Amino acid sequence: MKVAVYRKEYFNAAHRLHNPEWDAAQNERVFGKCNNPNWHGHNYELVVRVVGEPDPATGYVYDLKLLSDLIKTKVLRRFDHKNLNLDVPEFAGLNPTAENIVRVIHDILRDAIDERFDLKITLYETERNFVEYPA
Amino acid sequence: MKVAVYRKEYFNAAHRLHNPEWDAAQNERVFGKCNNPNWHGHNYELVVRVVGEPDPATGYVYDLKLLSDLIKTKVLRRFDHKNLNLDVPEFAGLNPTAENIVRVIHDILRDAIDERFDLKITLYETERNFVEYPA
Amino acid sequence: MKVAVYRKEYFNAAHRLHNPEWDAAQNERVFGKCNNPNWHGHNYELVVRVVGEPDPATGYVYDLKLLSDLIKTKVLRRFDHKNLNLDVPEFAGLNPTAENIVRVIHDILRDAIDERFDLKITLYETERNFVEYPA
Amino acid sequence: MKVAVYRKEYFNAAHRLHNPEWDAAQNERVFGKCNNPNWHGHNYELVVRVVGEPDPATGYVYDLKLLSDLIKTKVLRRFDHKNLNLDVPEFAGLNPTAENIVRVIHDILRDAIDERFDLKITLYETERNFVEYPA
Amino acid sequence: MKVAVYRKEYFNAAHRLHNPEWDAAQNERVFGKCNNPNWHGHNYELVVRVVGEPDPATGYVYDLKLLSDLIKTKVLRRFDHKNLNLDVPEFAGLNPTAENIVRVIHDILRDAIDERFDLKITLYETERNFVEYPA
Amino acid sequence: MKVAVYRKEYFNAAHRLHNPEWDAAQNERVFGKCNNPNWHGHNYELVVRVVGEPDPATGYVYDLKLLSDLIKTKVLRRFDHKNLNLDVPEFAGLNPTAENIVRVIHDILRDAIDERFDLKITLYETERNFVEYPA
Repeated sequence: MKVAVYRKEYFNAAHRLHNPEWDAAQNERVFGKCNNPNWHGHNYELVVRVVGEPDPATGYVYDLKLLSDLIKTKVLRRFDHKNLNLDVPEFAGLNPTAENIVRVIHDILRDAIDERFDLKITLYETERNFVEYPA
Repeated sequence: MKVAVYRKEYFNAAHRLHNPEWDAAQNERVFGKCNNPNWHGHNYELVVRVVGEPDPATGYVYDLKLLSDLIKTKVLRRFDHKNLNLDVPEFAGLNPTAENIVRVIHDILRDAIDERFDLKITLYETERNFVEYPA
Repeated sequence: MKVAVYRKEYFNAAHRLHNPEWDAAQNERVFGKCNNPNWHGHNYELVVRVVGEPDPATGYVYDLKLLSDLIKTKVLRRFDHKNLNLDVPEFAGLNPTAENIVRVIHDILRDAIDERFDLKITLYETERNFVEYPA
Repeated sequence: MKVAVYRKEYFNAAHRLHNPEWDAAQNERVFGKCNNPNWHGHNYELVVRVVGEPDPATGYVYDLKLLSDLIKTKVLRRFDHKNLNLDVPEFAGLNPTAENIVRVIHDILRDAIDERFDLKITLYETERNFVEYPA
Repeated sequence: MKVAVYRKEYFNAAHRLHNPEWDAAQNERVFGKCNNPNWHGHNYELVVRVVGEPDPATGYVYDLKLLSDLIKTKVLRRFDHKNLNLDVPEFAGLNPTAENIVRVIHDILRDAIDERFDLKITLYETERNFVEYPA
Repeated sequence: MKVAVYRKEYFNAAHRLHNPEWDAAQNERVFGKCNNPNWHGHNYELVVRVVGEPDPATGYVYDLKLLSDLIKTKVLRRFDHKNLNLDVPEFAGLNPTAENIVRVIHDILRDAIDERFDLKITLYETERNFVEYPA
């Protein structure tokens, strides 16, 4: 009788979409204004979903205060008010599209949350563009 | 060719998280400010998801006006502007965490909706903390 | 390692719920004020979910700018600021309930998006009434 | 020591923007797709602001339950699930732009609310287009 | 050339509307389900508006981090996860309607913010019921 | 009998808060993580309010399609997916705080909108931090 619990957090970051193996024209054609070499940025909304059995003693699947603290320690401290390309080592060789950001965040939290819990991440880059992993 | 239909409703309630088998220090340590003996409260948002085949004569899976009426009669009349711990018998011996509230609401509505429909409930305790059952 | 990507779009339309095989009393009884012969309308919110593998060269599952253009060309151009019953041929003999609208939109986009991508559509008729297909 | 109290309500309606003194080309040029002769529609959000002194016996400026009932009786019953041009007499000779709708609603409620209260109406036609009267 | 800056914060609290000079029947008639003797509760949203001249050295009217800290120290620490009637001395003899809560919060912050700044508070009790002071 | 009309638009930009006359320690102390030399970014929401008399022929104060086009041409084309400090000349010597951004946008639009209309701008840097000019 599993229940899913969700915690929403926020971070604000700069990034640039770019493939270093392509020339400027191809980067411009594919990534458009997201390829601006001077960067642009977003208010990212992050929703973390953890699934498991509620603990009979607490009624909690996963204490959302602890989940919030975990997200802050593992993700926000490293992503918030940062340049994703320059300040976050995972994107040194990885294009920080929403798809890649959500996978990086998933993998960070997957390592920090016990295996008995299922985990899914949703990341809003804007109100109209968002991604989910695993699908 | 099944379609999911959703109805969102609201209720405002007081509650307290507490395990009567623990002493005050342990309750404080686990539940923090949610353990305030004088209660606190929330605007709960409730999303009910019903899945089935649309009726060819109406184009409806489940008339959302009837679903809204059902939620009002079975849930809101008993939960809205109430103290969940004191006024709702299901929580007499059950800690009213979001996880337990969503399961209680699910079971109430499951009894009232024909078995041929799948049912899932999402409950927002705050904009940032929410739960879903079954996961 | 599939990722889901989502794009939200909007359209504003008039419609009427009506079954021509029923008399006025039965239409009134089933559809209530939605049966108004002079029409009423909604701001529809449309969320399109596409699931696939990110392309290693771009980091995109499906370029959301292209997905937005596709939705505009195939759906919004035909539905926005229209009377669904009168202006959209798919509803000539099909009651434009949210359930039927979401299936029509799904089928239009399914034909336009490569089979290797999974597709799901969510349609909000109001903030409190919405549908999803396939469920 | 005046306080403003606000109540938000919703209605769904069809309309068409049209000036009968103009030919079709000019109507098309000015009103674009809003001139569709088959109508289109919106989910209107209505925010009613009433300003006055709180009553010391109740702590209320204006009981928001009574304000909600008043809006339902005077406005929603006449506007919700209607065609504004055809079903609401005030728009028989008045183009139902958001600006004109908000003034009509203001005048209806102004007659029903005691003069000692100030009144202001905000009307959202979409999330991105809205109006306020008096300014 | 004054600019207004706004900070939004949240608190969750229980309360009861009640006039001790009235009998139960009159309290029930006026306050309805808000008079529940076992309390109910809300997620309150608080928006604080400060108006002044931007400081040329910083470009800030009032550092929103400092404003957030001030609201937390002066208001949230005393109101969040509390019973307004029982835990907050200002409501010992004052009915905690939204109108009275917003005036109490205003007066607390007015004492803590330099006079050269104008101050206005908006308090959302629900998404549909909210108040503003001074009007 | 003036009416206010509002149009909401969006842009995504990178920026850095910094006073070049201060040393690194003072910049860090005042601007904290907003001083990151590698930039960070936001999804800015921009609400433009224009007040005037509705034109009797159209029922419009200011055609919101034209207002949207004006905002796109004069503001979004220059601010969206840009680095405000590096790409927008107005911030070459002006710290891009929300207060300064809203004044720059106001002055750009004030030059482009006839004097008979009043103008006010609201700018959301995040959902919780926003500014308005003139106040």
